[in-house]
Order: sequence, then C-alpha cells, then structure tokens
Amino acid sequence: MKAAIIPIGNELLGGYALDSNSTWIGRKLTEIGIKTVFRISVRDSIEDIQEALQISSDKADVVLCTGGLGPTNDDVTKQAFCSFVGAKLIFDEGYFQRLEARFEKKGRTMPESNREQAYVPDKGEVIPNPIGSARGIKYKTDATRYYIMPGVPAEMKGMMGETVIPDLADISTEDLIVSTIRITGLMESALYDLLSDLVEETKVEVSFIPGFMGVDIRLTSRDSVAVMELSSVIYDRVGSYVYAEDWETLEEVVGRLLKENGLTVAVAESCTGGLLADRLTNVPGSSDYFLGGVVTYSNESKMSLLGVKNETLVSRGAVSAETAVEMAAGARAVLQSEIGISITGIAGPTGGTPGKPVGLTFIGLDYAGDCEVNRYVFSDERRFNKELAAQAALNMMRLAIE
Amino acid sequence: MKAAIIPIGNELLGGYALDSNSTWIGRKLTEIGIKTVFRISVRDSIEDIQEALQISSDKADVVLCTGGLGPTNDDVTKQAFCSFVGAKLIFDEGYFQRLEARFEKKGRTMPESNREQAYVPDKGEVIPNPIGSARGIKYKTDATRYYIMPGVPAEMKGMMGETVIPDLADISTEDLIVSTIRITGLMESALYDLLSDLVEETKVEVSFIPGFMGVDIRLTSRDSVAVMELSSVIYDRVGSYVYAEDWETLEEVVGRLLKENGLTVAVAESCTGGLLADRLTNVPGSSDYFLGGVVTYSNESKMSLLGVKNETLVSRGAVSAETAVEMAAGARAVLQSEIGISITGIAGPTGGTPGKPVGLTFIGLDYAGDCEVNRYVFSDERRFNKELAAQAALNMMRLAIE
Repeated sequence: MKAAIIPIGNELLGGYALDSNSTWIGRKLTEIGIKTVFRISVRDSIEDIQEALQISSDKADVVLCTGGLGPTNDDVTKQAFCSFVGAKLIFDEGYFQRLEARFEKKGRTMPESNREQAYVPDKGEVIPNPIGSARGIKYKTDATRYYIMPGVPAEMKGMMGETVIPDLADISTEDLIVSTIRITGLMESALYDLLSDLVEETKVEVSFIPGFMGVDIRLTSRDSVAVMELSSVIYDRVGSYVYAEDWETLEEVVGRLLKENGLTVAVAESCTGGLLADRLTNVPGSSDYFLGGVVTYSNESKMSLLGVKNETLVSRGAVSAETAVEMAAGARAVLQSEIGISITGIAGPTGGTPGKPVGLTFIGLDYAGDCEVNRYVFSDERRFNKELAAQAALNMMRLAIE
Repeated sequence: MKAAIIPIGNELLGGYALDSNSTWIGRKLTEIGIKTVFRISVRDSIEDIQEALQISSDKADVVLCTGGLGPTNDDVTKQAFCSFVGAKLIFDEGYFQRLEARFEKKGRTMPESNREQAYVPDKGEVIPNPIGSARGIKYKTDATRYYIMPGVPAEMKGMMGETVIPDLADISTEDLIVSTIRITGLMESALYDLLSDLVEETKVEVSFIPGFMGVDIRLTSRDSVAVMELSSVIYDRVGSYVYAEDWETLEEVVGRLLKENGLTVAVAESCTGGLLADRLTNVPGSSDYFLGGVVTYSNESKMSLLGVKNETLVSRGAVSAETAVEMAAGARAVLQSEIGISITGIAGPTGGTPGKPVGLTFIGLDYAGDCEVNRYVFSDERRFNKELAAQAALNMMRLAIE
C-alpha cells in the first residue's frame, strides 16, 4: 500500500511555516504499515492542487491532503477537489444552523465568512471535525482513496484519529516491523564501515539517518525474525554506542535510568536558559525524579541562588570548569537531589573572546559530591549551542548513571 | 522566477524526521524575491528522484535538492542526478587525498566508505562544503539551474550562503515586498470579515496564516506604496490585535519592550518546566533584562526557593491563583527584578481531578508588588499545554508593559 501526502499552503512554500503535519501523518501511516512514497506541497492555487491530485493518483493508493479549508479567500482546496472529481458545492443548511448555534452558545455572533464552511461537495462524504468548524472530505474511487483535511494540526490529528486511521484499517498491514537503533558518538561513515557487509547481505531494508546527536539505524521488514537477528548482530558490533531504541528520546532514557536507580536530579543552567529543564520535564511523570532547576543568567544569581563563590567568578570567570562545578554542587544542595547538573557557556552571538570563543561550554555533573566536568566548543549559532549543550548534558547523565 | 525544492530521504516520508530544510530554503528564496511554487519529497530511490527532477524542470527555473549525498548505500542522489542529465561519476584523486589528510590531522583513519564522496559527476560544477565531506553539485541548462546539496542542515546552509544565494543574485528580484502583520486574540473568520473588502479590492497578494497563538496576515507585492497603504488601513481596523510585525517573535517583542522601559524580569515556572525561560533567552542580548528563573517542580522547592507558604499550598493547592501570586512575588524577591512572572498548572497527562482538570493553569504577573493572575484551561496534551502556557505568559507581559 502506497500513500501520497499533499500539504497545501503558500506559507509552507514561502518558508513561513514548518510542515510538521506531513511528518506526523507519515509516522502514523508507517505505524499501520502504509508506505508514504512521496509528498508534493503546492500553493493555494486551484490549478496546482488539481495537478498534485493527478500526480498523486497515478502513484499512490491513498492520497491525503492538508490545508486550505479555512474561511478566507485564499482557501481553495474544496474548489480544487470539486474540479478534480467533477463535483459541485452545495449548501448544507443543517450544518450552517449548528455552526450558528455553536457561536451563540459562546455568546458570539458568527462571522459572515464562516458561512463558506457550510458548503460541501456533492461527491464523497464529510469527515467530521472534532474540534473546529472546517469539515474534511473522504472520497473513494476503485483505485484510490482521498482524504481532505484542514491544516490546523489539532484538527487534522482529530480527523486522522477518529476517521482516517480506522477507515484505512482494512488495507493496513500491521505486520510491517520497523525497528530503530539510535547511535551516538560514532560518525555515519565509520558506522557504515562496521556494518556494510551486513547491509549488503540482508533482505531487511536498512536506512542510516544522520541526526543532531548521532545516527539512527532503521530496519524495516515484514520478517520479524530477520529484523531481530540483524538487530542482534548490530548490537554485537556497535552496542556500546547505542543510546536508545525506536522512538525513545534521550530525556526518556535518562528519566527511565533515574527512576530505575531511585535517583533524583536538579539542574543549574546559564547559557541554555531553561532548555535542559524543559526537555527533562517533557517526559510525563518526570516529577518523580526531577526536583527543579535554577536558571542563573547573572553573576549575582549564580552567587545568591547557587552559592557560587565571588572569588571563582572573578578569578575563573562565569564560563569555566570551576564555576560549572560550583553550580552543579549548588543545584544539588539547594534542591536536595542526588545528582546536580550544570551548564555554563557562551551562547552567542556576542560575548566571545579569543580565549573564550562563542560556543565554549562547560557541563558539570555532581553525583553525591563527586563532580565530573566536560568542556565543549559547539558552534557560533545561539539556538544551536543551546540545543547541543542540553543534548550533551543529557548524554552525560545517561553515561554516568549507566 | 520560480523555484522547486526536492527534499530527498526515506526518513522524511516515513515521518522520522521533520523537513526543516525546505522551510529554511523557502524563506531564503522569498527574501531574494524568488517564489517557491512547489516542493516534492521523494524516497532514496534513483527512479523517484529522477522523476521529481523531471517534474520540477517543467515547472521551475531553479531546482534545489537536499539529501542523499552521504557515504552509505541508501544515498543515491548523485547517481540519480547523473542518470537525469546523462553524466557519469569520475574519481577525484585530489579531493580524496585532501579528505584523507583531514582525517589524519584529527588523528583518525578515514573510514573506507568516505571514498565514495570523492566521486563527482563529469557535468556541472562542485559546490564546496564548508563544514562536511559531502560536496554539492551545481548545473545549468538554458532553462533551469540545479543545485544539489546535502541534507545535514548546517552543511546545506553553508552551501546556500556561500554558493547558491550569490549564484542566484543575477536573477533575484529583491524589490519584492513581503510584509507580515501578526494578530492575536481574534479568530481567523472574524478577522477576515473585518478585512474582506480590502482583500477583494487590492492588487497586493494577501494571505491569512492561522497559527499557534493567532493569525499572520501576509502582504506580498512589488508595489511598496500599495503594501504600505494597505498595511495602514489594516492597522486602523484591527491595530489593537497586532502584537508584532514581520519576523519578530513574541519573545523579541517582550524583550524590546522590557529594554525600552528599562525593566528586568525573573520567572518562576512549575508546569512549563523551564520553557518560558528558554524562550526568553532565545533572544540575543536577553541577559540585559532577563535576570534568571526558578523551576520548582515540587512543593518543597516552591517553599524553599520562592518562599511560597506551606499554608497556601495546603489550603489552595500548588495549582491555584494564590500560589501563582506567591511564586511571582518570590521570583521578583529572589532575583531582585522589577517584574516577576509565574506559571503553575497541570501539564498532564495525569494529575487532573474533576475540580482541577489537566490543562488548568494560573499565570501570575507581579509588577513592583502589584499582582495580576490569569486562569486558563488549555488542552489535555502535555507539550501543547507547556507551549500554550509559555505563549500566554509572554503575551501577558507584552500587554502589561504596553
């Protein structure tokens, strides 16, 4: 089974919005064994959308569109669908009244432009919108199934969950095995050298996906035994570089390890400005092991909140191994945790000196009074430095607990 | 001038990776007046890449590919390009030796699979890679220019900046005016009702882009006077809902306002776990007004770090207006700032009760001892709640300072 995704919207092509919808849809389809073979993003143009529908119909069994169902004049997906299948729009009086009633209930008058959303094509079926006012369209031919959904992520996800995924159940092949082995600390080319003979021999589809902190090796096959066997040989060869499997994130791994070992953690952040705490708390249940954190952006707050010594800040500087040590110890002491982790660095774009360039970062990990410090020089880009530092801190925690 | 983007990679279609490259490229092209008319993502398949190149050549003057230039066997973009233009790969001995030398300098042996990266097509020119080992390809026909780049974002951005953008200078039309007006607190349909007559009259291209916190109105035209005039009428009608212009983010607006008014801020976060501090510190120079923050995930830390009273936590609960007030006051006191802002809520997925559901959030803003508290009920999704709460807190700050 092959799928095509058509994300619609000038904002996507012009670079004003990230197309996270397609990623989400692709993953959901992968989970039920449907392969997305391509996606084609087009502008809010009837002609372009029609052409994308045509190309997609030739290549895929399932076609999913998102975007262009809103109430404004640049929303033309419904019209394009009608031209493509030869349908016309008819006014749905019942829905119009329900829409009006919904607005009244909130004590508001319905804006006139919402009227547009009561029009439906006379071919296909309506997909209800569990959240918003833009309804979707479901349409089948002998060869292809079409699903037209809004671009607002929560609305699209609601429709996928309630209508599209259940609707695809009869053609999904859930026995497709997808297994991901996540590697850090080894370059893609070095990793490939270690595994290339396996890749050439096996019938399992193997992809190497280089990412932010390392490489994901993805194994796809209908043969679960083959995936297991290959996976086990990969572990034999490069197991020490594996930090997680499948969808587990580094913060989930760290959270799991902390829980298993009955440990608690507190963080002290300077240049990452709260990002490490943010990532740790993305994990449901993190309150079991994450006690809290302190973001100290000034020297004064490093002293008053974490007990960093003035002398250290003066003689070594705020960005130094010594300050990192005292920050980590301070976080532990203030929040009464077993582990304290600290990050201090120069995020940029300014603030660098020849001796301490932008990107220089120290990460301290204090475990019951024993402190380990790592020194990094990341990049010259502020957000990049924040992300790399938070990632490196999580990896230090993983290695320390493991 | 029209552009097409071809992002290549199984991981993109399968939903394993977000295609942020295309967004970045689209925006860069928009900035130099080149319109991206579509993009077509394909798998790592010679046949599919060739077909995407064919479709793109029919529709665009500039074609930009990313991905599939790495050293592993699933990287086939170079081969696909060769089939498409009828080129063959030749071995570049000089580059191979430079690569080897680079590895030696780092004290490593070059992995055998990097050898692959020394092959170049005998048509077109090499695009140097300022960061990595995968080189790009630049190729021109009478009708179309092709740029083949790696998928690693930093490498692609390096090539765009050093080679592609300068190369496109002669065909870029920098006089394209793009202006964005960012609205919050008004639904898309209500906004459209207030402006639809303008949209129908004007020659300026107007798009409405609904987003996380509101709607962006984007005006595009070569006629700068028309954009200015339309923009000014929009301000007359809905100016009170405008929170920013163009690319300015809410944290940049807040930062600018704090600076202009000589104010400093400190944050106290519970359910957002550091995300508000993270966003505030994404702005270069934020150390001028952001003094620091405290992430208090436990009752104990709310008391010890922020001075929240035990009595308040017991009688009102950690998620209450009263706790929010004391947290905001605590942040101000501890970090000696003019403004203290606090967030306490139930991020979920667990922890909700009938009286206090998941998503319930209180945000407190203490300005020189005067505290305002807002109550929200967001969603049942953890990350969504964190993001909505951080956004709402920033907007409260904006309104309070304005």
